[in-house]
Amino acid sequence: MDLTLSAGQYDLVYNAFSFVIAAMGASLLFFVLVRSSVAPRHRMAITLSTVVVGIALYHYVRIFNSWVDAFTYTGGAYVQDGVPFNEAYRYVDWMLTVPLLLAELVIVLKLDKGKTRSLLIRLTIAALAMIIAGYPGEMAAADSTSKIVWGILGTLPFLYIVYVLFVELGNSLGRQAPGVTRLLSALRWILVVTWTVYPVAYFLPAVIDDPVVAELARQVGYSIADVLAKPLFGLLVLAIAIAKSRDEGYTEEGDPRAVQARNDVPARQRARS
Amino acid sequence: MDLTLSAGQYDLVYNAFSFVIAAMGASLLFFVLVRSSVAPRHRMAITLSTVVVGIALYHYVRIFNSWVDAFTYTGGAYVQDGVPFNEAYRYVDWMLTVPLLLAELVIVLKLDKGKTRSLLIRLTIAALAMIIAGYPGEMAAADSTSKIVWGILGTLPFLYIVYVLFVELGNSLGRQAPGVTRLLSALRWILVVTWTVYPVAYFLPAVIDDPVVAELARQVGYSIADVLAKPLFGLLVLAIAIAKSRDEGYTEEGDPRAVQARNDVPARQRARS
Repeated sequence: MDLTLSAGQYDLVYNAFSFVIAAMGASLLFFVLVRSSVAPRHRMAITLSTVVVGIALYHYVRIFNSWVDAFTYTGGAYVQDGVPFNEAYRYVDWMLTVPLLLAELVIVLKLDKGKTRSLLIRLTIAALAMIIAGYPGEMAAADSTSKIVWGILGTLPFLYIVYVLFVELGNSLGRQAPGVTRLLSALRWILVVTWTVYPVAYFLPAVIDDPVVAELARQVGYSIADVLAKPLFGLLVLAIAIAKSRDEGYTEEGDPRAVQARNDVPARQRARS
Repeated sequence: MDLTLSAGQYDLVYNAFSFVIAAMGASLLFFVLVRSSVAPRHRMAITLSTVVVGIALYHYVRIFNSWVDAFTYTGGAYVQDGVPFNEAYRYVDWMLTVPLLLAELVIVLKLDKGKTRSLLIRLTIAALAMIIAGYPGEMAAADSTSKIVWGILGTLPFLYIVYVLFVELGNSLGRQAPGVTRLLSALRWILVVTWTVYPVAYFLPAVIDDPVVAELARQVGYSIADVLAKPLFGLLVLAIAIAKSRDEGYTEEGDPRAVQARNDVPARQRARS
């Protein structure tokens, strides 16, 4: 349905998208720059965070441009009379980023190889099922039965993923150093809270009667959820990787402690002999 | 021939191109970031993967823009009345990327110098012959004899390349560590399956009567093939390079094992003196 928005309503979404572009670009730069603070064995999780925010940066530039192209400013209001606003970018983005985010989380837990493999396969299949079911529902009319049916079909794998991750994160808590446990516990709750925003944003048009309010809430909701689920989630994974690196005695090349540690070893070895 | 596409048909190709841009950009970033996980002697293969997805990223941005410029949204449909859709980008891309992909594959096999040189020369000549023959055929009318003749001329070097690589990969399997053998065997099959998509996409307009269906299948087919042949192929080559680096005892700078190995040296040197 074509919308007519006040300047304030149009700008709310416009600014939300611009904020997400800035957040994704900033975290892309940040994750590249802090890489060397993390021990090599934990860097794959940071690499995946970096790639995730890079992909999201690209898609939010496209989403932003699509929003701008969809409206014309006429007589003091923004009228949706251009090319249709393209919601598909979100789904293409999620097809790529959700499996990568899940892999990032599983990798930072450092479970054994067989467990990691089995989790990654199950979670990736569930993620793709969730996104593939969501897409036709998103394209369907707000009050249609098919939106509800596809939504429920997508919610089942969604619940499965959140449940599995919540349980796996819970199980891994006992095996970690105290600092890492606190971070993992925070990650666990952020995951549940953030991910819940997505189905809420999806079902909003079905429960809010005013199509303008529904559209604004949905676009802003998805934007906030994407910032929490990608940059913030990536920051927590980074904090976990840094804490683990320190616990394992990793010091950056050139760090005085690294030089000290290296020089100390032969001395200790000599003392022993 | 000018096409008239429904919004769904137009968007299918549009989203496929956008997906390829995201996939190429993501893998470009990924290959740059994971470089240091690979021993220096295997890095050339990763470098070539990185350059290949970089070139493809550029060309898919061009292809995407050309698609957008070729159509106008009129009366609920996309009519092809703009500048012609430029298919030449694909061929310019392949002229650069196919020799690089072949070199990447030959390099990661680590054959002896003479063999590597001879393979690279033969495969590059065949690749250029294949692409140069394909181009006039691609430009020819869908039902013309010249499309078929050029297509067959291009298929001969294509079959030669696939045959040579299949045999060479097969020969090299016996000389590798078990983990590497499994990866090389996967690479061998992905190569054959992926590359087969290209001639199929080429000949589709000659066998499918409906020009809209033929065009959609061709563009989506080429897009999928390019994602498999470049990022996915690059990921497998990377996995092989990492596995070989590990087998050879390579550890990243700053890795506790590397620090340990470095500290061990003076002790051993002392023992010898």
